[in-house]
Amino acid sequence: MTFSNIMDSNSYQGGPGADPLIEARSTVLGPAYRLFYERPVHLVRGQGTKLYDADGREYLDAYNNVASVGHCHPHVIDAVTRQLNTLNTHTRYLHESIVEYSQRLLAGMPAEINQVMYACTGSEANDLALRVAAMYTGATGVIVTHEAYHGNTEAVTAISPSMGGRAGVGTHVRTVSAQLGRDEIAAAIADLQDSGHGVSALVVDTIFSSDGIYPDPFVLAPAVAAVRAAGGVLIADEVQPGFGRTGAGMWGFTRHGVVPDLVTMGKPMANGMPVSAMAARAEVLARFADRVPYFNTFGGNPVSMAAAAAVLDVIEDQRLISNAATVGGDLRAELTRLAAGNPRVGQVRGAGLYIGMEVLDGAGAPDRETARWIINAMRERGVLISVCGADGNVLKIRPPLVFSMSDVDRFIAELTAVLASLDK
Amino acid sequence: MTFSNIMDSNSYQGGPGADPLIEARSTVLGPAYRLFYERPVHLVRGQGTKLYDADGREYLDAYNNVASVGHCHPHVIDAVTRQLNTLNTHTRYLHESIVEYSQRLLAGMPAEINQVMYACTGSEANDLALRVAAMYTGATGVIVTHEAYHGNTEAVTAISPSMGGRAGVGTHVRTVSAQLGRDEIAAAIADLQDSGHGVSALVVDTIFSSDGIYPDPFVLAPAVAAVRAAGGVLIADEVQPGFGRTGAGMWGFTRHGVVPDLVTMGKPMANGMPVSAMAARAEVLARFADRVPYFNTFGGNPVSMAAAAAVLDVIEDQRLISNAATVGGDLRAELTRLAAGNPRVGQVRGAGLYIGMEVLDGAGAPDRETARWIINAMRERGVLISVCGADGNVLKIRPPLVFSMSDVDRFIAELTAVLASLDK
Repeated sequence: MTFSNIMDSNSYQGGPGADPLIEARSTVLGPAYRLFYERPVHLVRGQGTKLYDADGREYLDAYNNVASVGHCHPHVIDAVTRQLNTLNTHTRYLHESIVEYSQRLLAGMPAEINQVMYACTGSEANDLALRVAAMYTGATGVIVTHEAYHGNTEAVTAISPSMGGRAGVGTHVRTVSAQLGRDEIAAAIADLQDSGHGVSALVVDTIFSSDGIYPDPFVLAPAVAAVRAAGGVLIADEVQPGFGRTGAGMWGFTRHGVVPDLVTMGKPMANGMPVSAMAARAEVLARFADRVPYFNTFGGNPVSMAAAAAVLDVIEDQRLISNAATVGGDLRAELTRLAAGNPRVGQVRGAGLYIGMEVLDGAGAPDRETARWIINAMRERGVLISVCGADGNVLKIRPPLVFSMSDVDRFIAELTAVLASLDK
Repeated sequence: MTFSNIMDSNSYQGGPGADPLIEARSTVLGPAYRLFYERPVHLVRGQGTKLYDADGREYLDAYNNVASVGHCHPHVIDAVTRQLNTLNTHTRYLHESIVEYSQRLLAGMPAEINQVMYACTGSEANDLALRVAAMYTGATGVIVTHEAYHGNTEAVTAISPSMGGRAGVGTHVRTVSAQLGRDEIAAAIADLQDSGHGVSALVVDTIFSSDGIYPDPFVLAPAVAAVRAAGGVLIADEVQPGFGRTGAGMWGFTRHGVVPDLVTMGKPMANGMPVSAMAARAEVLARFADRVPYFNTFGGNPVSMAAAAAVLDVIEDQRLISNAATVGGDLRAELTRLAAGNPRVGQVRGAGLYIGMEVLDGAGAPDRETARWIINAMRERGVLISVCGADGNVLKIRPPLVFSMSDVDRFIAELTAVLASLDK
C-alpha cells in the first residue's frame, strides 16, 4: 500500500517552508512524521463529530475512530479528571478498577475468553499476542492478509506488509487475500510447515481495514478451522473494528461466527487515552503468563481504567452500537444511491460506521489519483476522510460512533458536490 | 535476576484466596500479573510523596519514579484536564504543542541531538531505537549489561537478560558487566563481528538500575568509543535516570561525559500519563525516518504533550533537579551513617534520588532473603521500597523527586527500626 493521504514534505502545497509551523515541525520531528492532506489541517478544538482549525473553521470528522464516543466527551473527561486527582499508580499494587473493568469487558465476550492483560497501544497488544501464541503453539509462522497493518514495533512491523510491501515481511510470515480463500490458506499453512516455522497464528483485522474494508460475514470461519487443525491459533485484531464500530455488537469477530484464542484492542478503547489490551483464553495464555512476569508500567493503571470504563458507559448509555448500525446503514444507502450510474464510483461496502467506497477511472479500474483528489477536495469543503486498500483508491469513511443523521446529510451534500465537480 | 519483590500467587500471606480482591484479580488477569509484598498494598489515594491504602493508612513513597513530580500534582492535572476539554487528536494534523515541547526538550540536550519521535512507553521507544540503529549501522548485534531491562516488546525482551537470564537473550546479544570493562567490551565486539551480526548498538541504562544501581561517572566513555570504532551507536536508555533523577542535570548520560546517538525516555516524562520518546542525532535517524512512515496513534498527541510540558514546568519551578541532589545527598549520607559498623549492610551508592543499599548476610555475602524481609518490614511500617541487582539484595530507594528532608527523617527512622529488629 502506498499511503496516498500521507504526505512527505515535498507534497504539501508550497512545500514545508510555506508554513512556519510545518517547517518547525519538520526540523524537530524529522522525516518520519507525515501530515494528512496537501494543505495540512491545523486543529485546535474538537467537540462531538466536529473539529475546528486555527482560523475557527469547522470540520465534520468522518475519519477519526479514536475519539469514538466523540471528541471531548464530558463523561470520559470527568472520569479521567476525577481519577487523576485521586491516584495513578500501577498494577503491582491492588486496585479495584482494573478488576471491575476486566470483569465488565470479559462479560461482553464469549465465555471461552476469560482473561485479559493491559498495555498502552494496539502495537504492544499485538506484539504481546504474538509472543503468547508462539509460546502456546511452539511455532513461529504467522499468516496475515496482503495489506495488513498490525502496528509499529519490530515484531508487528514484520507481520505488516502495508508498511514494507509483501516482500518486506519476515521469513516467518505468509500473506493471503482478504477473502481468505481455502486454497491460499492451505498453501500458506503448508509452506510454513515445510519451512520449519510451523503455524503459530492467523492474525486478522476482522473488518480487513487496510486491505480496503471487506465486511462480508463468516469469511473467517473456514480459515480458522484450517489454522487450528495445523496447530495454530486465531488472533483477532479488534483495534479498528472493536468497541461497536461494525454496528453488529462489540466485536468484529462475532460477525464471522468464530471465537478467537486471543483478541487485541486499542484505539477507541479509552477515547484517546493510550489504553490497549489483549484478551485471551486462559489455557492459551497460561504458558506465557506462568513464565514471563510481563509488566507494563502504564498498562491498566487507575486513570487508564477510569477512561476505559467511561467509554463503556457512553457506548451503553448512548446506545452507540445501535447508532453505528442505523446511521451507518443510512450513510451506506446514501452512498450507494450516489454511486449508482456514476462510472467513477465502484463498490460501496462496510459495516456499521466503517465504510469503504471505491474510486474508479471511469473504465472500471482503481483510480488512486482521483481518490486522493477527492479526499483533498472534501478537506477543502470541511469534511475529513482518508483512503485505504492496495490500490489506494478506497475512500475510508470511519467517523466517531456519535455520527448523526444530520452529519450524514452534510457528508452526502459535500460528497455530491465533490463528485459533481469531478465530472466536469 | 529473580524478582525478589514480585510475588507469585503462592507467596501472598494466606494465598490468593485470603483476599477477595486478589482472588478476583487472579481470575481475570491471569498469572502474569504479580503484586509487590507478601501483604500486597491496596492503594486508593496519593498526594506528593504519600500514598494511602483502603484502610486510610499512609505510606511514604520511596519507590515510585513515575509520579516523579509527586502524586496528583495539581499543575500536571490542570494541564491535562484543560487539553482534554479542548482537543485530543494525533500527529497527522498540525498542532503547536508537539513542536513547542520538542524544542524545549531538545534545548536541554547536547546540540548534536536534534530530533525527537514520540511513543507511549519506554518499551516502544527502545524498540524503535533498535530499529533506527539497525538501519543506520546495517548491523544487528547489541551489547547490554548482564542484568539489563529495556522493556517488554519481543525485540526489547530479547535484549533484556533480567527477564529470562543471560542465556535467554537473542543470539544477536552479548552481555557485559555494569563496569563495562575494556576487555569485556572488546570481547563482545569481536564476538558479534565474528558471528556476522556486526555491532549495531550499545544499549545502557545510564545509572544501571536493574544491575543494582552503579552511579560511577565516566564509566561509559571508553565503551562508547570502542563501540563507535566498530561501527555501532550508543542508545542511552534514560527511562529511569532521565528527567533529573540523578540530581546532576536532566540526563544520566551527562554524568558519563558522552553524547549518545539515540536517547530513549519514558516513565516520569508525563508523571504517569503514557508518554515516551526517542531523541536522536538527525543523521542517525535519517535512513529509518526517510523509509518508514512510523506512526504511533497516541504518541505525541496534544494531551500527552500538555502533560509532558507541565512536568518540565514543575521540574523547573520547584527546582527538582537541585532537590534531587540535595535531598538525595542527605539521604545517602544518613544511610551511609546507618551502614557504618553494621555487618548486614554493605555499600550505599547512588546519584540524586536513586540510591542502592546492599544487604549482606553478616559475613559479607549478598543476602536476598534478608533484603526481602527488610522491604516487607518497611512496608509494614508504612514505607515503600523494593530491591534490585543480580543477587536481589540491593535495596532500591527511588522516591518521587519532591522527596523532602522530613521525608528523609521519616525514612531513616523506619529503616533504623527495621535494621535494629534484624539484629535481634
